[in-house]
Formats: sequence, C-alpha cells, structure tokens
Amino acid sequence: MSEYSAIIYTVMKKNSQPSSTSTPRGMATHLPASALLRRHVQDTVLATFLKWGYREVIPPVFEYLDVLARGLSSALLEKSYKFADRDSGRMILLRPDITPQVARMVAGILSDEPRPLRLCYYGNVFRYEESHAGLEREMFQAGCELAGAASPEADAEIIAVAAKSVREFGIEDFRIVISHAGYLSGIMSYICKSLDVSLPHDAEYAVRDAISKKDGCRIEALLDDAGAGASLKNCILDVLKLFGGESVFDRAAGLIQGPESEKALLNLRRIYDLLGVYGLKDRVLVDLCEMRGIDYYTGLFFEIFHYGVAYPLGRGGRYDNLIGKFGPDCPSTGFAIDVESIIMAKEKVYGVSLPDESIKYLVFTENESWDDGSRLSGLLRNAGHKVISDTGLETIDIAIGYAKSNNIEMIVMKGRDGKHSFVIDVKSGKKAHVEKGKLVDGDYKLS
Amino acid sequence: MSEYSAIIYTVMKKNSQPSSTSTPRGMATHLPASALLRRHVQDTVLATFLKWGYREVIPPVFEYLDVLARGLSSALLEKSYKFADRDSGRMILLRPDITPQVARMVAGILSDEPRPLRLCYYGNVFRYEESHAGLEREMFQAGCELAGAASPEADAEIIAVAAKSVREFGIEDFRIVISHAGYLSGIMSYICKSLDVSLPHDAEYAVRDAISKKDGCRIEALLDDAGAGASLKNCILDVLKLFGGESVFDRAAGLIQGPESEKALLNLRRIYDLLGVYGLKDRVLVDLCEMRGIDYYTGLFFEIFHYGVAYPLGRGGRYDNLIGKFGPDCPSTGFAIDVESIIMAKEKVYGVSLPDESIKYLVFTENESWDDGSRLSGLLRNAGHKVISDTGLETIDIAIGYAKSNNIEMIVMKGRDGKHSFVIDVKSGKKAHVEKGKLVDGDYKLS
Repeated sequence: MSEYSAIIYTVMKKNSQPSSTSTPRGMATHLPASALLRRHVQDTVLATFLKWGYREVIPPVFEYLDVLARGLSSALLEKSYKFADRDSGRMILLRPDITPQVARMVAGILSDEPRPLRLCYYGNVFRYEESHAGLEREMFQAGCELAGAASPEADAEIIAVAAKSVREFGIEDFRIVISHAGYLSGIMSYICKSLDVSLPHDAEYAVRDAISKKDGCRIEALLDDAGAGASLKNCILDVLKLFGGESVFDRAAGLIQGPESEKALLNLRRIYDLLGVYGLKDRVLVDLCEMRGIDYYTGLFFEIFHYGVAYPLGRGGRYDNLIGKFGPDCPSTGFAIDVESIIMAKEKVYGVSLPDESIKYLVFTENESWDDGSRLSGLLRNAGHKVISDTGLETIDIAIGYAKSNNIEMIVMKGRDGKHSFVIDVKSGKKAHVEKGKLVDGDYKLS
Repeated sequence: MSEYSAIIYTVMKKNSQPSSTSTPRGMATHLPASALLRRHVQDTVLATFLKWGYREVIPPVFEYLDVLARGLSSALLEKSYKFADRDSGRMILLRPDITPQVARMVAGILSDEPRPLRLCYYGNVFRYEESHAGLEREMFQAGCELAGAASPEADAEIIAVAAKSVREFGIEDFRIVISHAGYLSGIMSYICKSLDVSLPHDAEYAVRDAISKKDGCRIEALLDDAGAGASLKNCILDVLKLFGGESVFDRAAGLIQGPESEKALLNLRRIYDLLGVYGLKDRVLVDLCEMRGIDYYTGLFFEIFHYGVAYPLGRGGRYDNLIGKFGPDCPSTGFAIDVESIIMAKEKVYGVSLPDESIKYLVFTENESWDDGSRLSGLLRNAGHKVISDTGLETIDIAIGYAKSNNIEMIVMKGRDGKHSFVIDVKSGKKAHVEKGKLVDGDYKLS
C-alpha cells in the first residue's frame, strides 16, 4: 500500500475516532498530502479547460429546492440534502450536481451572452450515498459546459476536452464508451407506433430498466405481457448486442426503425468520426444498449472508464432540454470529471507523483538571534524558497527531528561565535560553514 | 464605476431575476470575471502561505453540530445553518468558521504530528447575515493556523503572514490594530478581587459590552449600580483611552493592576517589537480597550483594516483554549483573510488588474476544413495558447462579432482556395495571409 493509500485509509477510518472529533460519515477531512493532490488536480484540470476557451464560474453551494429541482432527476433529488431556510421559509438544497446550476445561469443572468458559451467549474457536490457503496457524500467535480452549440463538432470537442483532462495526469489506458439517447428509444417508439402496440407507462419503464441491466429473459417476458410481437422483441434483443468497436455502427444500421433512430445513429457516427481527428478512435467503444444514468441527456451520452476504478473518471453528453427548464431553450453539451476517480486511477496504475511539497529551509534561531533569523527567512523566501522560521524549537536535536518529520531539506543556524552560520543537510547530516548572509542564486554559498 | 463593479452589481441584483433562476439571498453566483478574480486571490494567498511553510488542509463543508459547537461562540452558532442528517438523525451544521475545524483536526487525526504544526486553508463559510448589513451568506476565507507554539514569535509570524498576504495584492496603506484579551480583563478581575467587589455575571457582561462600545456614561452607571468604587471606575475609564501608536504602551503600563494585566502588556509589547523586524511597526495601532469579537481569543487579537472597506481584510489572534475543547490542550495562533474585503480594497484603491484571461485565437472553420481547423487548434494549444475551435459559427461576420464580445485577439481561417490561411487581428480588423501550418515560436508566420 502506497503512502497515499495510507492517508486515504486514515481518512476513511475517521469515524472510529473519539466522538469529540468525529465528522459525518462520507465527509472527508483532507490532510496535507491528500489536500495537495486535490489542489494539483484542481489546477491541472482548470488549466486544460481554460486552454480550450472555457471560462470558470462559481455557483453557490446551496440553492432554492423549487428552482434547481427543475433540472434534477427524481433519483438525484431523493439523494439530496434539503433543509428549510430560516430567512425565507423556502426549502433549500445543497447542490447534488453543478450542471443544472450552470444551466440556470445560462438561462438567466447570462441569457444575453453570445452563443456558444463555454463555461467551466470546479466544486463540491453533496449526496446521501449508501454506506456500502464506498462513496463520499461530499465529492469534488470539475466540468465544462458548451451551451448554444447543436453540432456534432461541439459534442466531439466536449469528449476531447474530457479525454485531454484525463491524459494530463498521465492516464492513457482509458476507454470512452459513447452512446446515444435517441437510438434505442427511437426504435421502441417507432415499432410500438407502427405495430399499434402501446406499452403502458409502467411497462415501458420496466422494459427500459431490464434493458439497462441487459436482462434478455425479463425483456421477453415483459414484452410478451404487453402483447408485443416477435418483431419488436427480436429487434430489442438484437439491440442488446450492440456493444463494441466501429463494427457496431454497421450492425446498428441494420436494426434502424424509423427516422429518430436513423438520425441518432448518423449523429453518433459523425461524432465518432470527428473523434478520429482528435486521435481518440482507438479508445472509443460504442454502446447502443446503454440506458443507465442517462438522466437529462437527449443525444450523445459518454463515460470514461479505467479498468482499475469502479466509477467512471468522467461522464457527460448532450442535454438540449435542460436550459429550457430555466428559460429559453438552448442546445448544450458538457461533461464532469470525478476528482476522486481520477486520483484513484492515477494512483492505482502509475503511483502518485505529488507536486513538490518539500520545504527547503528551517531557519533555527537561538533566542539572541531571532531577529537575524527572521530577516534571513525573509531573504530566502524572496529568493523563491519555502521557509519555516523557528518560533521556539528548544534544541538543535529537536530542530533536526522536526525537520526530518516535516520533510525539510536543510537547517540554517548561527554558530556559537555569532559570526558564521551553519547549513545542515537534514538527510545526510552533513554540516557546512557559510559566510553569513551571502545569498548566491537563491542559495547559500558554502565556504 | 469600473467594469468589475458592474459585474458585482449584476450579482447583487440577481434576486430581481425571474423566480425560475433566483438564488437564495446572499448566495453569490460568480460570473467569469468575478470567478477569475477569486481564483487569482485563491492562488496568490495559498502561494504565500506555502512559502511560509504552511500546508493546506481541506475540511468538510458540514459537520456534526454537537462536535463543532464546542469551538463556536453562541453568537456564531446562532447565525449558523443547521439541519437534521437523514442518515444518523444527528444535527448537522454548515461550517460558519474554519478555525474550529482545523482545531478539531489538530486535536484528533493530527494529534501525533510534531509541533509546531503549520496548516492553512481556503474555503467557504456560511452564516445567516442581516440583509441590511450587505454581507454575503457564503463567504470565502483563507487562513493559517500555527498550532503548538506559545511564543510571541509565533504571534508575530501570524501577523506577518497576514500582512504579507495583503501586500501581495498591492495593498499597502492598511493598518494592523493589535489588542490583547488579557489586559483589560486582568485589570477588571484584579481590582474586583482586591476591592472585594464581586460583579454579578450579568453586570460583568454588560460592562464588557459597554466597554466594547466605548460608552463611558453607561460604564459609570453600571459600575455605580454594582457598588464599585472610584478607583475601579477611573481605571476602566482611563483604559478606554488606550488607543493609538507606540506611546499607548507607556500609558498602559501606568494602569496595570495585578500580574495578569502586566503579563498581557509585556506579551503584546514583545509582539509589537518583533513586528519591527518584519518592517511593520509603522502600520501598527495599539488598542487596549478593544473587546468586540474576541470570541475564542486568549492573548493577542488583531485586525487588518483598510480605510476604503467597512469590514476587516483579515483578523486573528491567539486561541490557547480552543484545541483543548476537542482533545489535549495545545497553544495556538492564527488568522483568516476575508476574500471579499481584499477584493474590495484592491478595487477601490488600485483598480482591478485581472490576470490575463484573453483568448488568443478563434479558429474559424468552414465545414469542409473542420478537421484541419481542429488540428490547427491543437497545435496552437500545444504551443501554450488559449484557443477556441469553431463548432458551428455560420459566417465570418458572426465569427468576428463573437470574437469581439469574447475578447479574442485573432481569428484564424482558411482562404477560399483552400491553400492559404488568413489571420485577422480582431481589434484592428487587419488581415494577413499566412503560410498554412507554419507555426513559428507558437505564432503564425505572417507572409
């Protein structure tokens, strides 16, 4: 188990702490190593987003329930933290998702901005999650929304930014599974209509659920119950096999029923070809029987997977009807990266290379030289170094122990004659005289 | 009114939006320019903190009420957002302050770390604030905690880091008002004891309140009611004048009553002298009659003010009893910077110089050249530029309008012959031929 795992494990174990310091289950307290990693992810993904022309927005952590609920699925609403606002008496919810907040902004305060509008965010979302699922209840997400663009080029760009963000962490062996909300539902509604079979709403929901679980037997039983004929049954059972590489498109073309499914397939094929321009084709899998978690998606739907991680590193797609729930309609596409999954993927496969967090100098001061020590610390900081200035370490032995456990490289201190300084290399224990105050290229010149 | 003010004003006005996009009062939605500024503040203060050897931690947004309440004043608890946790049935509160969370960590999960422990954070806190106070209910704070250090050098360092953070934004004309929790209360308790006057608890609270408002008449009346003699009265009324420069120390020395007030004054004097080493003496004011908002402070208490801003840019001090409420006792000192006040000070006095947010290129593609355009965008991004790749702008006129309103410097596009490209400088409207794909030092070579 790596050092990093140990930290996470400690975090996970925190509920076994004494109650005077316990935190709610699934609410992580990130210690320095863990916080540094998250800061690194935050900086890296935001830099990528900005490079593609996305601009950061910061929406509030909570919103009125009745406002944001328009953009949330009932499943997500059920998982949300809600409470009454003492001030207004209205119900408030801690955001379980940031995309609907951005949609609210696009429809409202940003309604006059020229389209397409490229926005991005980094923030936490809050959800009641089952304890056995191993999910945190406060999760950090980073994402992009491309609003006011209906083209497949926009969808391809969104997938490309998501993939680029993942690659920035050195994660290369990921898979992008692309799907389309219109293909299977187009087939189902067309066949039902042309065969004059009207599936009751409950039955349709059950069929969709069975499809999402790829449960052929249950689909057959349900369709039999609903009085569907062999043609509908066989077609849907064939669609269940539409998972794989590029060849899926040809097989899917043979199963098209009606204009909606044809349009969806053409659209997805176009997006797939555009991904070739981004050099991503060999990472793409096509899944035309995916129905899970489609929520508000109306067209393309995609997830990025890594074999070492249970949850997708990122997911997104086209949601042409979401912004219209808060104002004028506006086609849109976007994605969100799950920060914990990115960190897990990076750690499992490549280990964790933290950005440099080490502190270069500890300026150890005996009482009579605190002023000099403090000035020296200032000089070293101005030269760009991370420096801890002593505020009361009692002996040099304590200082060395402190430097070791804090990963500090060198200790600087005055000699007993008050005229010269020593630099001690903490790792090797080597000690050298230094001409006092002679700062050469940001480092002490060793005598 | 600067451009930036206009943005804030829009944010403030958001409650007049239609209800489909309204957000709870005091919850800001930060649009790109505003978000960029906050991101800049975040990056800048954290870089300063790290340079002084502080390590970032990320505590959770909400905690169990009964756990965190130990470290909160009743006034702050009253202002906190609370709700019942569906999962555990326990009460939860959205953090109104981050210092008690760090104290909880120091006492619990970090109890084995060597002291002193330097930790820092950046995060949002949540408080019900009166609407007329003009305060946001979600506020961003950044702060440092130096735990396990009892020395005045530690207190001086904390003030120095806070001041350095403020100066990093070019804000120079600030004032640091230093105070001490032990001076006035030491005098009061000593006189009461030696004169055998025992102020009832309510009366003592009322006197403290009157002192905090510097209300001499009310103090006299209250002390008369409580049967205090002239000696106590005059002393306290004299203390009310202890505000100003270095000379305050001499006057204060003459009013000392008992060892607690003497110790407090010596301690504050030592911290004041140490601030001279950091070059801060000329910015310091001493206020020995300050009692407002002392909350959990047990020694030094300070606030950083700027004449253009109603609220302190930062505040902090020594809190030796706070960590002990969550575990073993541990002396500690720290501060928090208020991000909104920093931004206001910077804007009011120096105007706002945003970090460069402009997007360099818009690669405009007619349909037939999207592949080339997309590849070109990739090349330009690899060369370090911010690039928007066209996803369906219909005409070059639309593209130019779009570039103008998005502050994009140049448009790159193919000529009608398909062989050459143009670069259009958006501001000047100048157009130049470009040899296709010739990328020299990250820029197009103009022919």
